[in-house]
Amino acid sequence: MSQRLQTPDRIEADYTVETSVDPRQAVDVMAGEQSSGTFVAIPGETPELKARSAARVEAFEAIGTAASPSLPGAMETGDPITIARVTLSWPLANIGASLPNLVATVAGNLFELKQFSGLRIEDIRLPAAFGDAYPGPRFGVAKTRELVGVHGRPIIGTIIKPSVGFGAEETAQLTRTLIEADLDFIKDDELQSDGPSCPFEDRAQAVMRVINNHAERSGRKPMFAFNITGDLDQMRRRHDLVLELGGTCVMASLNSVGLVGMIEVGRHSQLPIHAHRNGWGYLSRHPMLGWSYVAWQKIWRLAGADHMHVNGLSNKFCESDDSVIASAAACLTPLFADKPCLAMPVFSSGQTVTQPPETFARLGSADLIYAAGGGIMAHPDGPAAGAASLRQSWQAAIEGVPLATAAASNNELSRALEASAS
Amino acid sequence: MSQRLQTPDRIEADYTVETSVDPRQAVDVMAGEQSSGTFVAIPGETPELKARSAARVEAFEAIGTAASPSLPGAMETGDPITIARVTLSWPLANIGASLPNLVATVAGNLFELKQFSGLRIEDIRLPAAFGDAYPGPRFGVAKTRELVGVHGRPIIGTIIKPSVGFGAEETAQLTRTLIEADLDFIKDDELQSDGPSCPFEDRAQAVMRVINNHAERSGRKPMFAFNITGDLDQMRRRHDLVLELGGTCVMASLNSVGLVGMIEVGRHSQLPIHAHRNGWGYLSRHPMLGWSYVAWQKIWRLAGADHMHVNGLSNKFCESDDSVIASAAACLTPLFADKPCLAMPVFSSGQTVTQPPETFARLGSADLIYAAGGGIMAHPDGPAAGAASLRQSWQAAIEGVPLATAAASNNELSRALEASAS
Repeated sequence: MSQRLQTPDRIEADYTVETSVDPRQAVDVMAGEQSSGTFVAIPGETPELKARSAARVEAFEAIGTAASPSLPGAMETGDPITIARVTLSWPLANIGASLPNLVATVAGNLFELKQFSGLRIEDIRLPAAFGDAYPGPRFGVAKTRELVGVHGRPIIGTIIKPSVGFGAEETAQLTRTLIEADLDFIKDDELQSDGPSCPFEDRAQAVMRVINNHAERSGRKPMFAFNITGDLDQMRRRHDLVLELGGTCVMASLNSVGLVGMIEVGRHSQLPIHAHRNGWGYLSRHPMLGWSYVAWQKIWRLAGADHMHVNGLSNKFCESDDSVIASAAACLTPLFADKPCLAMPVFSSGQTVTQPPETFARLGSADLIYAAGGGIMAHPDGPAAGAASLRQSWQAAIEGVPLATAAASNNELSRALEASAS
Repeated sequence: MSQRLQTPDRIEADYTVETSVDPRQAVDVMAGEQSSGTFVAIPGETPELKARSAARVEAFEAIGTAASPSLPGAMETGDPITIARVTLSWPLANIGASLPNLVATVAGNLFELKQFSGLRIEDIRLPAAFGDAYPGPRFGVAKTRELVGVHGRPIIGTIIKPSVGFGAEETAQLTRTLIEADLDFIKDDELQSDGPSCPFEDRAQAVMRVINNHAERSGRKPMFAFNITGDLDQMRRRHDLVLELGGTCVMASLNSVGLVGMIEVGRHSQLPIHAHRNGWGYLSRHPMLGWSYVAWQKIWRLAGADHMHVNGLSNKFCESDDSVIASAAACLTPLFADKPCLAMPVFSSGQTVTQPPETFARLGSADLIYAAGGGIMAHPDGPAAGAASLRQSWQAAIEGVPLATAAASNNELSRALEASAS
């Protein structure tokens, strides 16, 4: 597959496909379905016209076989089932630099084609016109770090739990506990937005009172990602309220809001956008269906996402560590030569003091948000010790010092390691 | 599972799940993950607080076993893998009547839980507050029929093909051919929106000139669904242009635009919204992952979709006929007792004169759009005969007359049946 960041004038997409049809014929069907192919001759169509807009098969490589079809409903020819990697391309002139129409073109009806018992989009590459048409992340890594005042190590964060149940004042009280524990970053749960039990406006005001008081006293303002997910006017109003109150981050659920809504939030926002990927499982859990994160995250970064959730190593969900690292590395890989659009990957789910060394060794970067729940709250000496133990673990990881060695001179880390081993 | 249309004050969702864990424990994890469950005790949480917002398991039924896990990444206990149906419910107060937050609540992180080797959302039921908060379809079946002037039979339609390649004038010329063939409905392909090769404004003007001329001469205005898919301001401008030109329908791709964008289109639109589901395969192709159409279509109808694509019997894609009929029936089932929100199902993909009898017999309704491509263009006597043959087939289906009998007195139907048999 191509390693180029961007393409001069065609849109490219890489797929893994599985088919018992002649695989070269099958990929021709893909290209036809998503461009100028027709099943019967149409008055007015000409070879020139079709050639102008046709999708091209740029690369094809058979990489293996499958013993049985991964997905139901495909043609069964009785021939061996081939697994192949294929790259298609389209002229930019088919759709222009439009993200919503890009999705219809590179994904669209492909996943329902009878020729395939598996089809997954692995990557996309775009002409620079897309970078001109969309803002991309306005804050990304560098400006997020400036706002939080954390450099040279990950931003250490946590999530308000329980997900739902707390009212505004209870959320503010827990926020006080968490910022007194010296956390850099706190986020709403994705289930908490503006329910009658915890109205957004009340929560934002109560939480920002706590944060602003802390900032006045300490000179340091932790970042709180307020979940503004809702209808468009609600999201704009909530963003404006957070901004007015002196808040420094808003959060939205990508799969709940959708692409056009996120583009609007991206254009409107004067704060970093913390992009939550809940629902990701239905897009990606089957390895021969749907979207790879590498392809998917590019679309949201262009739309303006500053922070992108990527799960974490040894997480409580079902994703492999290889997949997590590939996702995080993708967020830190430039989209265009002149406009990198880097987003800060957010590690979460079962994260404790034990994962930083491997996370840093494999990712090769500390440009990330490291969010823990139990990893902070369950520290035997309380949340402040929990937060300190995570910073100590990350410092050791970055300096290449084994955790056991670092624990000898870092009591909080030592106590956290003891607790996790018991 | 419940047959109630709506729920008094809780949100309900039905799932099929697959697990090798004790299935009752596994569904408790589902309920906890999507509400007030926490892995460690949190300062401030109380039993009352958790009870107020907790999701409840309303129903549970083991319905079978699986020989092997459907999806990778799940815990493997060595115990038998149970397939079960489960209903969860949430207090409306957790999120209020918010469609985006509904998606995060009923779907969200569930699909990534390690407890499950399969998880699919089958249906949702909502309190009437959702019907109050969102417009639902403004045109639906009855007003779409009024605009097209077709009653007592399906609206017969077709799609502009090739999907891409035609410019504005070529599209208008084909439109002339199609409306002279007496089609009720024509739609843009989902790959054609506003590319430089066929700008939206040029296409809308050229096509509406043809349609308006025809309407002046004949007194009948066929409905053309212009694909307005794009960024929000583009979609609004395109809608306004279509309205100003006298057009009667706009189309948008649900999975490209996303929920918040479609809610905005729904609130803005003064025309029926033809909702295209391209991309549906990545949400639903695996039977133990993702969304059933029965659950999914409810969200889009509430957002304002007037016409919903459902595929067709004996389609060229990989969906079963049972699934197609269940989808179409769902669109014609009321959402709320006082606000039915019916959407017109759109049958397409390989539709010809042969499918109407079974479609009508199984659906029990002719309130649908029946879109054919080759079924019209490939008629041996041309598109006008193709369109006539479809109307004749539907008339026979509705009257319960076998096609062979109807063909004796309907030449276009007879010729189409001969051609399809050869």
